[in-house]
Amino acid sequence: MALTIFGVPGLPEIEAGADLAAMIAEAAAAVGEPLAGGDVVVVTSKIVAKAEGRTVALDSVTPSPFARRFAEAWEKDPAVVELALRESRRVVRQVGPVLITETRHGFVCANSGVDQSSSGAAGRAVLLPEDPDASARRLRARFRELGADAAVIVSDTFGRPWREGQTDVAIGIAGFAPVLSYIGLHDPHGHEFLVQATCRADELASAAELVKGNLSRVPVAVIRGYPWEPDETASMTDVIREAERDLFR
Amino acid sequence: MALTIFGVPGLPEIEAGADLAAMIAEAAAAVGEPLAGGDVVVVTSKIVAKAEGRTVALDSVTPSPFARRFAEAWEKDPAVVELALRESRRVVRQVGPVLITETRHGFVCANSGVDQSSSGAAGRAVLLPEDPDASARRLRARFRELGADAAVIVSDTFGRPWREGQTDVAIGIAGFAPVLSYIGLHDPHGHEFLVQATCRADELASAAELVKGNLSRVPVAVIRGYPWEPDETASMTDVIREAERDLFR
Repeated sequence: MALTIFGVPGLPEIEAGADLAAMIAEAAAAVGEPLAGGDVVVVTSKIVAKAEGRTVALDSVTPSPFARRFAEAWEKDPAVVELALRESRRVVRQVGPVLITETRHGFVCANSGVDQSSSGAAGRAVLLPEDPDASARRLRARFRELGADAAVIVSDTFGRPWREGQTDVAIGIAGFAPVLSYIGLHDPHGHEFLVQATCRADELASAAELVKGNLSRVPVAVIRGYPWEPDETASMTDVIREAERDLFR
Repeated sequence: MALTIFGVPGLPEIEAGADLAAMIAEAAAAVGEPLAGGDVVVVTSKIVAKAEGRTVALDSVTPSPFARRFAEAWEKDPAVVELALRESRRVVRQVGPVLITETRHGFVCANSGVDQSSSGAAGRAVLLPEDPDASARRLRARFRELGADAAVIVSDTFGRPWREGQTDVAIGIAGFAPVLSYIGLHDPHGHEFLVQATCRADELASAAELVKGNLSRVPVAVIRGYPWEPDETASMTDVIREAERDLFR
């Protein structure tokens, strides 16, 4: 089995209300790689959020006293801190300038994924999509309307404990189950697998980042040749570990 | 930029002392994809460890009283627990049957990476390579002797906090720096990057897993088309977060 992964360049700045799936399909066709059935289309959450109008003017945000104090202590933008707190349901770690939160979706990441760098306009921040699985499902439905039965991953760039450097992970999925379970299966030696489940959604998101990069404006990648069984109930709830099962929350 | 990723099937069971690089090069050529300059060859740590003789007969291991008590409480193999402890320098979490350790290399993972499932012979466990960077450098040197200036990643399958499902990560590297830094650079909007560094070594290892899988016996994948600048000083020390910088240790 061989995979091919390519970026989809040439997308314009994304505005609220954009028909993002159509723009991606068009951009892919324009570089001679029209989307095809079986493709996995990995879309950076930033442009999904922008198309959904999930950006906020920083001067419209009134920071709480807590947000203001934290921002002042570490030379952060108080409005961005306020948004990160509003988008969270729990602060997991607050140490020095670092704010690790559990988002309302259940993701654990820095600043609730609130991003000031990619807002496309000064003075605005981009939030994570309201419901990234729903975003992915809408994109998948639209790709199918346009003739390509493609799976969709909405990705973001998260840090992690213990290891330096961030990696891209999935935050929304449509088309196939994000976790592949080996439970009850046996390896070639007859042992039950110690690896019980692989989060292929995160591995696909990471693979996509290799052609997207963060320096170039290539927010979409297509992975071709990865076999997936359609599952329209797919959701990131399979990936989000329940707090009771988590030793590091 | 497009990447191609393919698995290298057809390797025999690896014995201690095997010329692993030559076997990989031969297996790749046999399926019509000879290794080429610029390739990134991702090799599962298990076969690297086996070639280096890093397997242990479980009946040769005398478990400590602590290892025995823990193993009995949770129906684990006391010799495997003992090896996990010997390979560690610190227990990071021990909750129920779960044992998360910091290995002697500095990796944080379950059971110090000691693997009973892939030992290839009943009653043996496979350890992580003694020095995975050195393993990667030896493989890279041998690939170059054989005519292919390929980079090498030694990979393993690790769990992580907060998210279900394991992913493949790098534990050894040769040929290029594992972390790509954006510090001081600016995005298309002129903002400094909030993403300061990407751990491309882990993303490449994850991408490779997509074609290797854990069910099939394909312990090697080749990533073709990923641009890397040669760096013979590359080491996983850039990836291992220092304990003082770690909020979850």
